Amino acid sequence: MGEFPKDLLGIKALNVSQLQTLLDEAARFKGLSEIPGKKGEELKGKTVINLFFEPSTRTRTSFEIAARRLSADLLTMTPQATSLAKGESLKDMMENLEAMRPDVIVVRHGASGIPGLLSKYTEAAVISAGDGSHEHPTQALLDLFTVQEILGADALEGLHLVIVGDLAYSRVARSNIYAFKKMGARVTCVGPATLLPPGLESFGVHVSTDLDRELPDADVVMLLRIQKERQEKMNFPSLAEYTRFFGLTKERFSRMKKEALIMHPGPINRGVEIDPDVADGLMGSGPKIVILDQVKNGIPVRMAVLSLWGCARRGGV
Amino acid sequence: MGEFPKDLLGIKALNVSQLQTLLDEAARFKGLSEIPGKKGEELKGKTVINLFFEPSTRTRTSFEIAARRLSADLLTMTPQATSLAKGESLKDMMENLEAMRPDVIVVRHGASGIPGLLSKYTEAAVISAGDGSHEHPTQALLDLFTVQEILGADALEGLHLVIVGDLAYSRVARSNIYAFKKMGARVTCVGPATLLPPGLESFGVHVSTDLDRELPDADVVMLLRIQKERQEKMNFPSLAEYTRFFGLTKERFSRMKKEALIMHPGPINRGVEIDPDVADGLMGSGPKIVILDQVKNGIPVRMAVLSLWGCARRGGV
Amino acid sequence: MGEFPKDLLGIKALNVSQLQTLLDEAARFKGLSEIPGKKGEELKGKTVINLFFEPSTRTRTSFEIAARRLSADLLTMTPQATSLAKGESLKDMMENLEAMRPDVIVVRHGASGIPGLLSKYTEAAVISAGDGSHEHPTQALLDLFTVQEILGADALEGLHLVIVGDLAYSRVARSNIYAFKKMGARVTCVGPATLLPPGLESFGVHVSTDLDRELPDADVVMLLRIQKERQEKMNFPSLAEYTRFFGLTKERFSRMKKEALIMHPGPINRGVEIDPDVADGLMGSGPKIVILDQVKNGIPVRMAVLSLWGCARRGGV
Repeated sequence: MGEFPKDLLGIKALNVSQLQTLLDEAARFKGLSEIPGKKGEELKGKTVINLFFEPSTRTRTSFEIAARRLSADLLTMTPQATSLAKGESLKDMMENLEAMRPDVIVVRHGASGIPGLLSKYTEAAVISAGDGSHEHPTQALLDLFTVQEILGADALEGLHLVIVGDLAYSRVARSNIYAFKKMGARVTCVGPATLLPPGLESFGVHVSTDLDRELPDADVVMLLRIQKERQEKMNFPSLAEYTRFFGLTKERFSRMKKEALIMHPGPINRGVEIDPDVADGLMGSGPKIVILDQVKNGIPVRMAVLSLWGCARRGGV
Repeated sequence: MGEFPKDLLGIKALNVSQLQTLLDEAARFKGLSEIPGKKGEELKGKTVINLFFEPSTRTRTSFEIAARRLSADLLTMTPQATSLAKGESLKDMMENLEAMRPDVIVVRHGASGIPGLLSKYTEAAVISAGDGSHEHPTQALLDLFTVQEILGADALEGLHLVIVGDLAYSRVARSNIYAFKKMGARVTCVGPATLLPPGLESFGVHVSTDLDRELPDADVVMLLRIQKERQEKMNFPSLAEYTRFFGLTKERFSRMKKEALIMHPGPINRGVEIDPDVADGLMGSGPKIVILDQVKNGIPVRMAVLSLWGCARRGGV
Repeated sequence: MGEFPKDLLGIKALNVSQLQTLLDEAARFKGLSEIPGKKGEELKGKTVINLFFEPSTRTRTSFEIAARRLSADLLTMTPQATSLAKGESLKDMMENLEAMRPDVIVVRHGASGIPGLLSKYTEAAVISAGDGSHEHPTQALLDLFTVQEILGADALEGLHLVIVGDLAYSRVARSNIYAFKKMGARVTCVGPATLLPPGLESFGVHVSTDLDRELPDADVVMLLRIQKERQEKMNFPSLAEYTRFFGLTKERFSRMKKEALIMHPGPINRGVEIDPDVADGLMGSGPKIVILDQVKNGIPVRMAVLSLWGCARRGGV
């Protein structure tokens, strides 16, 4: 797969053909996973290091399961378990990891750009599992995959994606804007003015503060997570007010297209971004909640990523 | 194994034939483990998630080794490493784990009933590794197995089991009362009146506060762990007084049947529930301390459980 | 391999022939690791427990990768995750681990002698991964290996090793003194008088407080890590003063033999034991920095250790 870049640091660097190759590989792995007891050997004898500086259930677990299903030798590291506690620098830690000749290093970090920085110290493929407010590329890939799987391979062309919430800090939003735009979709970003970064239009998206106006025309609504822990210093008066204007309430749900999809990268804040009954699919017919499909698809998508990047690295003598 | 329930939440729900099937399977795995380099493939391509909300050496380790010896893909999760730290609810966490299609989820939790509650959110088999003061079914299975292994396959019928200690809060006691009673044994519960819950007789056991009277007639004595950390708010004046009336001292040891067995689920409090020399087998002839046999048998018993429940779940397309 | 001792607790107990066997095995594993996808099966069905009471990046990771590349069933335990939190004694924890019949237990502990103590409770081979200020045998093995690999199989005989730093507390120094002396090298220990333990000469080494005098004659310079966290109660006035007299500055680097090697067990304190530019190999021609070779060689060396000790233990029926 010589045409792929060394690392997967973001969606921005990929072209349509590379995105489609990844989605096709994910579909292949999803098919294989339906066969009981079937286990891939694509990464047998290869070493995958999971380096998570931020806590995570679904992303870390999903990468771990993906690596195991490909028979990789897997090592999970968290900063507190490392020599960083002894004052070792990130650079030295990486040089030491590199000396162990891993094939893939999956990195999550709270600061934007760290995966790219770490890549300088290793020949291994670095896969970003989310860095600061920069990108979260595998999330966008699994979101694309989920939409294609449910709405059809051709659905992305001309589709209208509406992203709702904290656009200022969201790596999920950034990766998805790149991903859906590249695949031919049209993207609208909706949120309180204070959470819409200046210059957002330069990404080629439509920007709005009026969810009620945008919602009826959405094919896919992607709700972003409100970081409650950051709320105190945040730029909107209260969670209740956020929900009033930007929450996916029952009433708003009822005004969406019947065949639309509702996505959320999780974990959701019940009653904030989304009404609990809507989240649990208790509203009967209407738009489809695909939040758990997203999680489920995380595994074949990450198998595709690990296998594509892991097989290319570090040949023999 | 269609006749087994979906989950293993407790011994109460199992019948004699199911118990004996599990014990026979454990014996088969114990035999296989004597062959060097031999590794089972029963769970190849299956995913086992260990979800431990309480710390544990032996139970967690034992399940991990069992899962690895069956070639499962194993994932160990502890609450602090998950998104629960971000405020995610138990329900959402489970729905997310479920979306990854695990075959078995092993759960330990400090609150009674949590494994059963989690089961509602997953098609995976949920195996309780101990929940609050409810049940600890694999502990009872390994205790049954240990007695059968040492005293013979027919020994349980008519055997007299004496359980000593904090009957009010012990999940180990509850599971063992069910297990031994079902297999035809007679059970006596001994402890200070304040640690004997009202209604204990309704389990079909004899209840006593006089260890010295019950001990000479016991075939198996099972000492429960005193939770020192709970002692301050507890219902007996001091550890020393507990030991005086309910500790297995050298003197009491010498008055037991010579062929009796002494069990403890561990970790033991040396000098509280049991005299250190008795625990270490330094008393010469007499009753047999089988505490480490219990630990050792934890692995084949858990291999039996994981393989029976893990193979039944989630067929192919 | 009957001639090897039960455990690897230190280099002191090994003879030249055993050391050379280990180095040869490591070379064999290093060769195999160059073949892509190649995975050893030496420890298939064997159980390796990593028991790390002290944090560590490279040693723990290195043992984990080594165990996985030999197909061992691997279990990593850290004290806070165990029943030690419930007040269990070290002895009881070991008896419980032993009951699970591991083949190898790798132990790191802050107190000297703990691995040897634990060995009494297990038939498994105990491999020290560093204990207090006693020994760190696999570090010395990988240091020997690195020197032989770069300078040639015969280079150790008559080689002059200069060890610099905190000789009073260094397990790395002790293991390397034994290792290099046994292989025929000559060893000089250099440090501030307060960090040179009385009686150091009895190890058969030359002792000096003048780095500038010893450096020009060194074939290998091994810098020890200054434990900054211990510095407050330590025996030299300041880090700056330490660096002035014992740091490997650019100026000192330029006065070394051109073909000499510079080693450090890591993690390095940039600007303390070694100038950052020297550490990063930015000085052009001259002595060779082999710090990352040491890390890299940790894996084949630990594969050799695990496979030699792991295969010998616990036969079948």
